[in-house]
Parts: sequence; structure tokens; C-alpha cells
Amino acid sequence: MTATQYILTLSCPNRPGIVAAVAGCIFEHGGNIREAQQYDDTESTRFFARITLDHPEDRLDLEALRQGFGLVAERFGMSWSLRDRGERQRVMLLASKFDHCLADILYRWRIGELPMIPTAIVSNHPLETYAHLDFTGIPFHHLPVTKANKREQEERIWSLVQETGTDLVILARYMQILSDDLARKLAGRCINIHHSFLPGFKGARPYHQAHARGVKLIGATAHYVTADLDEGPIIEQDVERISHNDTPEDLIRQGRDIERRVLSRALLWQLEGRILLNGSRTVVFRD
Amino acid sequence: MTATQYILTLSCPNRPGIVAAVAGCIFEHGGNIREAQQYDDTESTRFFARITLDHPEDRLDLEALRQGFGLVAERFGMSWSLRDRGERQRVMLLASKFDHCLADILYRWRIGELPMIPTAIVSNHPLETYAHLDFTGIPFHHLPVTKANKREQEERIWSLVQETGTDLVILARYMQILSDDLARKLAGRCINIHHSFLPGFKGARPYHQAHARGVKLIGATAHYVTADLDEGPIIEQDVERISHNDTPEDLIRQGRDIERRVLSRALLWQLEGRILLNGSRTVVFRD
Amino acid sequence: MTATQYILTLSCPNRPGIVAAVAGCIFEHGGNIREAQQYDDTESTRFFARITLDHPEDRLDLEALRQGFGLVAERFGMSWSLRDRGERQRVMLLASKFDHCLADILYRWRIGELPMIPTAIVSNHPLETYAHLDFTGIPFHHLPVTKANKREQEERIWSLVQETGTDLVILARYMQILSDDLARKLAGRCINIHHSFLPGFKGARPYHQAHARGVKLIGATAHYVTADLDEGPIIEQDVERISHNDTPEDLIRQGRDIERRVLSRALLWQLEGRILLNGSRTVVFRD
Amino acid sequence: MTATQYILTLSCPNRPGIVAAVAGCIFEHGGNIREAQQYDDTESTRFFARITLDHPEDRLDLEALRQGFGLVAERFGMSWSLRDRGERQRVMLLASKFDHCLADILYRWRIGELPMIPTAIVSNHPLETYAHLDFTGIPFHHLPVTKANKREQEERIWSLVQETGTDLVILARYMQILSDDLARKLAGRCINIHHSFLPGFKGARPYHQAHARGVKLIGATAHYVTADLDEGPIIEQDVERISHNDTPEDLIRQGRDIERRVLSRALLWQLEGRILLNGSRTVVFRD
Repeated sequence: MTATQYILTLSCPNRPGIVAAVAGCIFEHGGNIREAQQYDDTESTRFFARITLDHPEDRLDLEALRQGFGLVAERFGMSWSLRDRGERQRVMLLASKFDHCLADILYRWRIGELPMIPTAIVSNHPLETYAHLDFTGIPFHHLPVTKANKREQEERIWSLVQETGTDLVILARYMQILSDDLARKLAGRCINIHHSFLPGFKGARPYHQAHARGVKLIGATAHYVTADLDEGPIIEQDVERISHNDTPEDLIRQGRDIERRVLSRALLWQLEGRILLNGSRTVVFRD
Repeated sequence: MTATQYILTLSCPNRPGIVAAVAGCIFEHGGNIREAQQYDDTESTRFFARITLDHPEDRLDLEALRQGFGLVAERFGMSWSLRDRGERQRVMLLASKFDHCLADILYRWRIGELPMIPTAIVSNHPLETYAHLDFTGIPFHHLPVTKANKREQEERIWSLVQETGTDLVILARYMQILSDDLARKLAGRCINIHHSFLPGFKGARPYHQAHARGVKLIGATAHYVTADLDEGPIIEQDVERISHNDTPEDLIRQGRDIERRVLSRALLWQLEGRILLNGSRTVVFRD
Repeated sequence: MTATQYILTLSCPNRPGIVAAVAGCIFEHGGNIREAQQYDDTESTRFFARITLDHPEDRLDLEALRQGFGLVAERFGMSWSLRDRGERQRVMLLASKFDHCLADILYRWRIGELPMIPTAIVSNHPLETYAHLDFTGIPFHHLPVTKANKREQEERIWSLVQETGTDLVILARYMQILSDDLARKLAGRCINIHHSFLPGFKGARPYHQAHARGVKLIGATAHYVTADLDEGPIIEQDVERISHNDTPEDLIRQGRDIERRVLSRALLWQLEGRILLNGSRTVVFRD
Repeated sequence: MTATQYILTLSCPNRPGIVAAVAGCIFEHGGNIREAQQYDDTESTRFFARITLDHPEDRLDLEALRQGFGLVAERFGMSWSLRDRGERQRVMLLASKFDHCLADILYRWRIGELPMIPTAIVSNHPLETYAHLDFTGIPFHHLPVTKANKREQEERIWSLVQETGTDLVILARYMQILSDDLARKLAGRCINIHHSFLPGFKGARPYHQAHARGVKLIGATAHYVTADLDEGPIIEQDVERISHNDTPEDLIRQGRDIERRVLSRALLWQLEGRILLNGSRTVVFRD
């Protein structure tokens, strides 16, 4: 499978003929569909699809396909994107001193699991906090945040996003709440990991809340950041069994494992174009 | 393992010497400890234990042990119970037309998985609703409930509990909220199955709530019934993965599997004396 | 969604244009694709798909579509089937005295979870073994099997399959090994549940094998029956955690829960046309 | 909980009075039992226990307790150990270029999850292979192994074990088979992670084997190393769901997550004295 692959994602109001038109257009341009997933939301009557395609002799004329597909998209009122699978997205990582998600993402990136370009690591804490992590090749920015300077600090983050051409911002246990303004600017391209099984235990110290309530499983939730705290569209969740014997500290320890696998899955799916927004929910075309 | 087994459960303020005193007392009466589980809650500084024991020649003098143990219990301020493992508890089942938990419990009882004596099946619906289930040997009571007659209906349930010597009441998707009064009377011996992963999605139509929120796992929760709706001590929870593709009806179908396994586990643990109350939480000594 | 739905499944050597041709043909006949899943096996270079479709005004001319699709299928060398989703398959259930899978399937069928017509229940044990199960409406056949009569017994089963127009045979813990001959006759339409996580613990008494080896999870496997014992294409597997504390009897009890959910999933997927054979493996288009 | 804690583990033939004698002895020395877990193997009629204890005023006379307990142990024919929970074990890590388990263990150690002292990292590959990992404070030994030098290489490992006072050797995807001789020398204190759900797929390339067989879940197994390849006592296993869509490379990627969590759990349990050998199986007193 050495031919260049392309990822097409689209959504539009459902009606007969979409698949025929899309597949026909790809075929006319010599493309071969390798994967195709679709979802027909019978409530919103909206149609969603993700298609990967290549060309048997690797001679796809991307611009011609893009133009041809533009006509199909217009006919069906589609939102769509078509991109080279090999073009890696640019990702900024925001972290706190709880660096297990950061360490995990960096490791996965280094061994080639996460096809991305890290544009920056931003933290409220100084570089020496991360002495045991290897940031080689990734600019680090120490941007302390206080009540007083929050606005300026966020402006610096936003500038960094623009200067570095960042496509995606990951809150890797960043532990700061984004302002409504920044959340809005990053809509659909900022993913947070919340350390509870939402909608249970929103807000602060969720493992202490879980312990107090006496639940028998704890979880973590990766979601898009919106102005409503912990209310953004959910991308992925997972849980682990606990017992009466576990203290809040035990939950925090076990939670780290859940958090890092949930966030890394959400990140990978985003990088591979597997997540489409459907109102306040997500369509996730898992592999 | 044909010798009679006994189950001892206890809780008391923690202090040195409890295990030595308890084990010493059992040994003096010729008993052999087969299983022992304990939990030392460092927050409440309360100690909990469950011990099963037998006698090598099956000649345990239960009354003598009970008397001897009473002295130990007094010394440490224990709440405790000691019973013959073979004495089956008396269980009343309350059901609605959603009879998957009821059917599951009856099946497990018939093949010997649940060591209990069903004292009655009570339903808001008439007997013919359950034509495909075998109620042989279990009295059925059709007690329709309306807003107007709720008080009398609950009085009939309470009378039944008393007349039948019922130890435990199971709300097997009963779909009625017990009054504060009845909840209080059945405190610690009434288990409900709620069809969500509490504390998320309390109240009505939890699968519709879960669908609307777009969660990626659904769950069910078995808990003791208290006057606070869906706030009682949690005994057991479990979840299953769902996707954007699942309708509320799909969730209801998948949920049935989670509900029946969660409720049957909670019921079995209660029958085996594995659950101890610890304030608003539970200590569950799983096997 | 009251329009009649149709299920199309197909497989063929992969080459460009398949999806365009299939979707184009459906569109020409006025069909609307509701679900579509595909798999492109890059090893065998074979393509697999499952499509459900309906017609906006419920006026699909099935025969015309079938003819039109025949031409597409011929062009691409497809194996394919197209059927009305509402046409329930005819299923024969073979059981032993371990009737938990049988009871579970019957319950799911009665509440409408399994869209099938049970054609017969066949057992090595007499009807009274199942006194607590409701077989109303399903012919029961007591076909005792011994070493001496195995051949005749299997001939009677095969006759029953033919007389009843059975599409699918389920070995619901049947505990008998089918002869090579019968296995061959039922190729691709006989599903067994094996009580281990294959390929571990093939053959007899797998829970005892699992206990002896000291594994920390036990499982069950639903697979198509082939002449090679416990070697048929795997459809579904699941596991549960156990501990050193569990005896073989505990494993058998816990295993019942795994077996019944694994077998009922495999059965449902078969009824919904979600399973395609790919050599000695399966493609399962889960919902 | 600032008082020094001690961990007592023991096993002996089962007979009445063990718990009374052990708890009595601890009480006499002023000790307070904080956790106690026991297992009574009715097959081998052997008794196993793990107890953690402290002293209310932190004035436990460890030597006196050790002497007193020696008498109890002699009476019951016990194998036993008693140690300060705070005394960290000395652990040697053997790795290959597949360094996900190594990286994971080092990270957990640095943040305090694994109470151990790494004595050495040994690899078949040179130091630059691990440029992105931080080995600060841990001696690294590049010990290339070939068919010809295997004996000498293992002698160097064994010398290192002795010189460094290593208690425990972890094969963190070491990818070399230990000789019978070295396996014997390290009996009960060498843990390997095998990348399959044993006993399925022993030996080389288990993910390729799993793919070829078409299983629906893949797993990993942590076990003590013995002279019989992949046959040692199992400590921990876990699995994840896969699908027909996953290539062997996908399984390898998903497997990394399973391997690292299974191995780190086994390591933690070993460090906390939670694992006791029971013939060819293990007793694991999980928290």
C-alpha cells in the first residue's frame, strides 16, 4: 500500500443518491475507495461519511478531483474536506505538572503512532518541571497564568496558535479553564481530557467526588472544548473497576491510565479525520 | 467441603486486637476460618470484616459460639451477624412489564445460582403479562398502582413483606418510586436496578438522556433504595460501549444485558452476606 | 422508518469502481442506502460489503433490482445476496441439559430481540428436562444419541433441517461433536458456542483446563462449525476476570454469562446478515 | 498513615488456628493489622495470607516480632517473609528496541508509582537506541547477544544481578529466551511479558498468529519465567477487542497498550508482596 492515500470527509442532509454520486465521482477520476464508513442520522436526517481512497498507479490528480467533487458537494449541500493522508496536522500541547498525558503523547509520537507535528508545548510551569521528558525539537513556552493575567496569557496562546499554524490544541491535563472567547476561537479543534466519566462529576476534583459517592467504576472523557465547562461533544470515554478499598489517591493513580489512553485515542482519531461533529454530539468512525 | 459453613459479618471502630480476638474466639470453639476479608476505612476509622468458617468434624456448637462471640462484640462495640450459610434468605420480587431482570433472576434461582426462597412476585400488571415465564411455586400478586391508591398499594406490599417473612425486596425494573415511608421501612434490605451509570442520568428515561448527551458507554447501577431517588448506596455498576450509530432503542436493548448482570450480582452478594453499609457507601467483599 | 428495508451483502476481488457500480445500480432503481459497511482485505485482495437500503416511498421493485444487480455482480465476479430485512430466518436449536444458552435465546426471541422463526428444539434429553422453559409453538424432538446410533441420529437431524426449511442451526451448548459429514452439510450455517477463549483450551472440560493453567481471564467463543473441532471461523469472543480464588465450579457459573452473551450476539449478527466468511476467518460488520 | 508499615506474607498447610495464632502474635507485639487477605486452596489444602501491619505509636520492635513469629511459623510449617514496606526492592530491567514497556516503567517509577530502585538497564542494543528516554541515575549495560556468545552474555547478566543486589529481573519485551540455567537461577524473581493471551499463541510473532486465526480479542500475559517457554505461572492478563479490519501491524500497536499495563501491574504487585506462588499457579492478593 505505497500509493498516496487521501481522506475525504463529508456531511449533508440525507437524500437518495449521495453514495452513488460520491463513489461515481471518485471512480471517474480513477480513484479506488479503500475504506468507507457512513452514518445516516435518522433524527437530524443528516448524512455523514468518511472515505479513504488512492489511485492504482498513484496518479490521482488531486486538484481535478477536488474540482469535480466540488460540484457534487454543491448539489447535495455538503460540508466536506479532502486531504492527503500523509500531510501531518500541526498540534499544540498544553500541560500542567501532571504530565502523564503529555509524556504518553510524546512517546507515541516518537515511535510513529501519532502522525502529527508538535508545534509547541505550553505550560503554566517552568521547563525544569519536565526534566525527565525529552522535548527535543519542540519549542517550549512557559506561560504562567494568574487571575490577573489570564487575558494576556490567552492572547499569547492564541498568537502562538496563529504563528505556528496550529491545527489542533490538546489540553493534556492543562488544569486551566479556557475563557469563552478562546474556547470559541478554537471551536472544533481543541480537545480536553476530563478525569471523570461525564456527565458524572463535572468540575473540580472528580476523583474525590467519585470516592465520596461510592461508585464502583471510574472513568475519563475526551471532549471538544466549548464555552460550557465539561459540556462539549464527547469523543471517547473509558472506565476501570475500583473497590471500596481504593482511596482518592488510588483513584488518581488508576485514573492516569484511563486518561492517557482515552486522550491518545481521541487525538489519533482526530489526526486521521475520524471525528465529525453532529450538533452537540460526535460521529466517530473508528477503525 | 460438606461441613456446614457459617457466615460472620461485623463492623466496629478500628483499634488493635480485633482480628486476634475474633480469630481467637473462633478457634476456641473449634472453628476453622475458610475465607476472611476485612477493610479498614482510614477516613471513618471503622473496621469491617466478613468471615466464613466451618468445623473440621462438622460439630460446631453455634449457640456457644454466638454467646462467646457476643462478649468479643461487646468489647469492641461491634455490629455483627452470624448465620448458617445454608439458610436461604427470603426474597420478594417487584416487577413491571419489563421482565428481563425478573426472568433472569428466576432462571438463576432454578439452576441453583441464587440461594434464596422467593416469597412473592408483585406486579402492577396482571399475571397474563408473564405467560412465558414459569412462576410455579411462587405466589403472584397483581397490585395495580395509581396516584390515588399508591398509599394503600404500598401498605399491601408492606403487609406481604411481613406475612411472608421477607428478608430482602428486589426492585427488578419495578418502575415505581417507593414512598419515603416504605423506603425507610425497607432500609438496607431493598435493592433497585437503575438503568444508568449513576450519578449520571438520574430519574426518568436515562437511555434517552444518554443518547442526547452523546456518551460513548452506557451503564446500569444496583443500589440500596433510600428516600432520595437514585442516591442510595451503590452496590455494583457496569457499562458497555455504544456508538453514534445506536438509537435510544438500541441502548435499551443493550442496557437489558447490563441491567440483568448488575442486578443478579448485587443480589447474589447480598444473599452471601458480602455487602456491608459504610455510611452512604458500601463495602463489597467480592469473591 | 416504516419503509421495507433490504439487506445486500457481497464479496468479490477488489478493483476500482465497485462502490460506484453498486451505489449507482441502487440509485437507478430508486433505492436509498441507509447503512453501508465495507472491508477491503489487502492480503487476499478481496472486497466485502453489507448495505441496507429502502425506497423513500416504499415502492422498490425488488425483482428489477435483483436483475439489475445481477449484471453488476457478474461484471465484478461477486458472491452476493439480497433479501427483505423483515423475512425472518428459520433457526433450529440443539441443546443439552445445560440450558442457559437455550433459555436465553428463547427469552430474547419472545421479547423481539432476535428476528427469527424457531423451527425445532432438538435434545439428547427428554422434554421434562426443560419443565421450567416455555417451548410453546416450537416442536421439540428428543433424539437421544449414543455411540451406536450417532449416524442415524444425525440423519434424523438432517431430515429435520430439510423438512423444516431450517436456514441456521445453533449448537446451544449441545455437547455433542457433529460428524464431519453433518458439519460439511451445514457449512456456514451452523454456529457453536465453545466455553473457552479459543485457541486456548480446545476440547473437553475447558474450565477445568483454565483453572489448572491458572489463567486470570476466562472466555467463550462463538464460531462456525467445521470438520476440525474448535477450529472453525471465529465470530465472536468475550472474557471475564477471575481470580486464584475461583474453583472450576465458579468458572462454570461465570462462564454461563459469557457463553450466553457471546452466542446471542453471534446469532443476532447472523440473522442480520452481518457475518461474511473470509477463508478461515470472518468479516463481522457490527452495528 | 505516617507509621511505618510492614508486609507479612506466608503459606503453609491449612489447619484450624492459623489466623488466631498469627493475629495473636501480632497483637502481642503491639501491632495493628491494616490489611489482611487470605486464601485457602481446598485442592492443595494449602493456606496463603498477606497482612500489612503497623504500630499505633510507630514503636514496633521488628526483631522481637520476627522472633516471636518464627515460633508460630515453625508450629505451622510456614514459608514466610516479613519486611518494612518502605524498603524498596532492587529491580533490573532487560529490554530490546521495543521500548514501550521500558519507557512506561521508567515513567511510573519517576512519578512515584513504582516503589523500587532500578539497579541496571540491560539491552542487546546500544545506548543511542534510547536517546529519547531519560536513564539518569540508572547504569546502562549494552550486552549484545548472539548464538555464539549467549552463554557469556548470560553470565554477565548473572554477575550484574549479584553485584547490584538485584531482587527482581523484569524482561520488558527483552525478546531473548533465557537459558534453562539462568531461568532456574532467577526462579520466582524474573517476570516476562508475553504478547499474547496465553496459553494461546505461544512462541514467536503472536500477533501474526492471532491475526491468522481470526480471533476477536488480543491480549498479553505477565508471568514468572521458567525453563518451559511461556509456561511459567501467570500473574496477570488483559485483552482488547479487535476486528477483521485490523492488520498484524494494528494488533502490534494496540498490543503495546495492553503489554505495558499488564507488565506494570505485575511489577507493582510483586513490589508490594502481593504475589505468592502456588505450584504452577499464582495467588495474587490485589488491592
